[in-house]
Amino acid sequence: MSNEIGFIGLGAMGLPMAENLVAAGFKLRVYNRTPSKADPLLKRGAVLQSNSASTASSGGIAISMLADDAAVEGLVVGDDTIAHRLAPGGVHISMSTISPSCARRLAEFHTECGSKYVAAPVFGRPDAARAKKLWIVVSGAADAKHKARPALDAMGQQVIDFGEDPTAAHTVKLASNFMIAAAMEAIAEGLTMAERGGVDRIKLAEMLTSTIFASPVYQGYGPMIAEMRHSPVGFRLELGLKDLELVLKTATEVRSPMPFANIVRDRFLSAIAKGREDLDWSAMALGARDDAGLGEKG
Amino acid sequence: MSNEIGFIGLGAMGLPMAENLVAAGFKLRVYNRTPSKADPLLKRGAVLQSNSASTASSGGIAISMLADDAAVEGLVVGDDTIAHRLAPGGVHISMSTISPSCARRLAEFHTECGSKYVAAPVFGRPDAARAKKLWIVVSGAADAKHKARPALDAMGQQVIDFGEDPTAAHTVKLASNFMIAAAMEAIAEGLTMAERGGVDRIKLAEMLTSTIFASPVYQGYGPMIAEMRHSPVGFRLELGLKDLELVLKTATEVRSPMPFANIVRDRFLSAIAKGREDLDWSAMALGARDDAGLGEKG
Amino acid sequence: MSNEIGFIGLGAMGLPMAENLVAAGFKLRVYNRTPSKADPLLKRGAVLQSNSASTASSGGIAISMLADDAAVEGLVVGDDTIAHRLAPGGVHISMSTISPSCARRLAEFHTECGSKYVAAPVFGRPDAARAKKLWIVVSGAADAKHKARPALDAMGQQVIDFGEDPTAAHTVKLASNFMIAAAMEAIAEGLTMAERGGVDRIKLAEMLTSTIFASPVYQGYGPMIAEMRHSPVGFRLELGLKDLELVLKTATEVRSPMPFANIVRDRFLSAIAKGREDLDWSAMALGARDDAGLGEKG
Amino acid sequence: MSNEIGFIGLGAMGLPMAENLVAAGFKLRVYNRTPSKADPLLKRGAVLQSNSASTASSGGIAISMLADDAAVEGLVVGDDTIAHRLAPGGVHISMSTISPSCARRLAEFHTECGSKYVAAPVFGRPDAARAKKLWIVVSGAADAKHKARPALDAMGQQVIDFGEDPTAAHTVKLASNFMIAAAMEAIAEGLTMAERGGVDRIKLAEMLTSTIFASPVYQGYGPMIAEMRHSPVGFRLELGLKDLELVLKTATEVRSPMPFANIVRDRFLSAIAKGREDLDWSAMALGARDDAGLGEKG
Repeated sequence: MSNEIGFIGLGAMGLPMAENLVAAGFKLRVYNRTPSKADPLLKRGAVLQSNSASTASSGGIAISMLADDAAVEGLVVGDDTIAHRLAPGGVHISMSTISPSCARRLAEFHTECGSKYVAAPVFGRPDAARAKKLWIVVSGAADAKHKARPALDAMGQQVIDFGEDPTAAHTVKLASNFMIAAAMEAIAEGLTMAERGGVDRIKLAEMLTSTIFASPVYQGYGPMIAEMRHSPVGFRLELGLKDLELVLKTATEVRSPMPFANIVRDRFLSAIAKGREDLDWSAMALGARDDAGLGEKG
Repeated sequence: MSNEIGFIGLGAMGLPMAENLVAAGFKLRVYNRTPSKADPLLKRGAVLQSNSASTASSGGIAISMLADDAAVEGLVVGDDTIAHRLAPGGVHISMSTISPSCARRLAEFHTECGSKYVAAPVFGRPDAARAKKLWIVVSGAADAKHKARPALDAMGQQVIDFGEDPTAAHTVKLASNFMIAAAMEAIAEGLTMAERGGVDRIKLAEMLTSTIFASPVYQGYGPMIAEMRHSPVGFRLELGLKDLELVLKTATEVRSPMPFANIVRDRFLSAIAKGREDLDWSAMALGARDDAGLGEKG
Repeated sequence: MSNEIGFIGLGAMGLPMAENLVAAGFKLRVYNRTPSKADPLLKRGAVLQSNSASTASSGGIAISMLADDAAVEGLVVGDDTIAHRLAPGGVHISMSTISPSCARRLAEFHTECGSKYVAAPVFGRPDAARAKKLWIVVSGAADAKHKARPALDAMGQQVIDFGEDPTAAHTVKLASNFMIAAAMEAIAEGLTMAERGGVDRIKLAEMLTSTIFASPVYQGYGPMIAEMRHSPVGFRLELGLKDLELVLKTATEVRSPMPFANIVRDRFLSAIAKGREDLDWSAMALGARDDAGLGEKG
Repeated sequence: MSNEIGFIGLGAMGLPMAENLVAAGFKLRVYNRTPSKADPLLKRGAVLQSNSASTASSGGIAISMLADDAAVEGLVVGDDTIAHRLAPGGVHISMSTISPSCARRLAEFHTECGSKYVAAPVFGRPDAARAKKLWIVVSGAADAKHKARPALDAMGQQVIDFGEDPTAAHTVKLASNFMIAAAMEAIAEGLTMAERGGVDRIKLAEMLTSTIFASPVYQGYGPMIAEMRHSPVGFRLELGLKDLELVLKTATEVRSPMPFANIVRDRFLSAIAKGREDLDWSAMALGARDDAGLGEKG
């Protein structure tokens, strides 16, 4: 079996993921809208393509890591896309955070073309991608997942399988991103109330994240929120809003009200309305301080 | 220095905490509204008192672990209470979950009487109390905390100091309980949305609590919520409502809006209105399922 | 039957109500914490009392219009209060906005003393009180309401009866005040969204309040909110917060979640935290503008 | 000037509106997906067309009253649509409830084609349409509005002008529909709390809607909600959800958080999830009862 892979999308996440594939011995044909982003990979033997479709070959693998539904849809749906080039039998590993309803359309289009769609979104920020510490959730046809597995293993610390439905892993990703954002809001409200009650917010965050909330999410965001340290940007506020919009769109489609998600979405929206769009998405936590009449700084 | 301690309140938490004090060599004078609860302690040398005041002695230590503001206020404020009996120089270690404003009144009354108040609420459920795995947060006058320390060390795995303000540790406790309840709601919304989207909720809970949310709170409540396993009762729904009422009362007093806390309080309220008051407080998570038109069982 | 009435509480509402009683031929014995507020009434024949109890006489009528639960409770519960002085057979017409649970205690105390409690809270601001345009809702024992009727007719344009339960009229008042506050928030959100979408907010308010929302509440608050005109103060923000706290306390007691009430309460809380406590309670509407990153002025 | 008008969309609202045009002397060329709906109009001289484009003539007027963004977009955008047929100088009067962003695209497409777009959504239910009691809000180019005016006057009791921006009237419509839905939720919460507190909900609704809330919206929905009378259907629950989705989409686009709108949207969503989709949209009010553990019937 060939060890060639197409890779589309060399952003803050995609680039280190592709580098880990190269390190694991895969040969990459890469495409990125801004070609210069590919330079570090080209030095290590990757071959730049002038369009996304030509990264794919019949029966091969193509990986996409793009910004949103529209970008991935543009990659797949149409004439002469990777969905056609991968056929027969090739696999598209779709690692972006997209809506389950979009994933369903993509999977159906792949099927029509004779290729296959594997959902494989990831958990972790760019430093985790670099360190091969991503958690990858997958769903899709069993044989396609089997074919995708060596590439996934080269990019993450663990691959967790959510069955055959190509939308499932995307739903998992959205539910999880919602839970991360909800954790940020909960931290923000708890720390703000405590601060107004005379408690040292930094000490409180230390206590919580070393005891009952000692997990990566709380240990990552707790200190940032306590210290109001929202730059440099790990994940942009606009992307936080985009993700929560996907969460709520999906919640509406599946008829499942999510009151916390509404509040979190509005925190992102309000942060952008207030001109904080250049901060990390954790800056949504400033909303609780605004409501309490506190400033952006201690 | 004497190793005698008064202990008031032998409920699900108080009893195992008192047992750990006995095991550490302290001699207890105990009081409980239902005296028979003291039997296991009496067998190990504790002495039963007929009223709470007589558990305290001049310059000694008295520990309280009771249900609510009113109970602790009844113990302290009045004629001939432990606040008087501990004077001069004795210390009341107040370990119940009470409101900061109540704690302020109690601390002032102790000062008037010539005794001292140390706030020392705990984190952990009865099994953690038994295993000496409680986390204890303290605040109060430095000398009083120093005097309280050996007893606290005998009951918990770690003592975390939040300074001199006697309300601070109680504020920390309320902020944290809010965050626990918020975590339950976030889990409930995430799992419900995912389930409606075709994802296996138990598998999702396993994934989340072994990766980005691998902390005691999520690992404790995630499986319970995923499996809708809300009995036996570790913490009663009514107490969850009581705690959230204290959170919101405090939030109002310190002028700090908490939108998540509103939602969580209403989940407890609604669960009780729907007749679920005999379930564990985690049964608040069923509210997200109700809203999505799902039943109590899979 | 005597036409003497005791009147306690000569604030912005109480004074014009008492003046209408005088105008209708009633002779008043009045009490107010700040006695000088009674001057306009004394000129018209009212007699000032040095304490609240002495406004009441056996078998007579005493009317109270005070700030909160504690004030009315202080008037009734205790030794030698109006509850005692009115006995046997006298009636306390309680017109303040208080909690139903407080009203229950008061009614029971009156019964023990041999006097009677009629709940009679009012709708309308001070100018409506002056113009005898108040709507009065009553509940209580039929004979007591009958005895109270001439006085009520002298103060309002309409008296609406909610039965025998002495808490009912107070519950009606709280439910209605909640609905008024909810209308303000709905107006605020609608106008803010429309303004951000390029619509003239003042024109929109005019349209709505002259068509589908042509009612006193919307016609009163719509223009104030559209024009951001929140002084002079008709009803203080702090009182708005107090009322919403009573609403939510009652909602908790009767096990009835009210998500809109949570949001409205937080708007009052946040307005106070932001230093707007000297504005009319309609200034809660600025919260929607804050969230959208708009200033206090156009 | 010709008195011919094209009319597209003969649903519960469109048909009585078209009938009023006929009654006012206009000659209609009509189109409806289900042609038989046009029968009452054909008897009165209207002429049925086999497609929507042929209802329009160069320099004339075409009116659309359709279900959603997609339907109106399908009518306008494409080859040989009414946008082309109306050119040069004809006017499309767009009376459906659609999103402002859709209206912007439509207006631009009309401009490209040489025809004009006038936004003219309406307030009122089918019986108001029949009685010519609709309120019509308009926006668009002044000359186009002038040309549209006689037709609008024939369908409504009042035409209210919101300026030149073709999105403005649609934004007004969405803001207003949000406020209607918010009024329903406020009524529902107030009545439910009062009922649980022992108050007669029907009497309370009567009092409120004859005094401080005496307006068409409250007088229309208050009794329906008090009596839990949610059929026959005046406006379908699914359409309520659609409208609130448009409201929230627009709120996100203009960066204006709307916490009440979130709650109202979720009430529609939950009502559908619970199987109430065949009831009137006012059945969203049952959500407050569900939360309080009350049944669908008294």
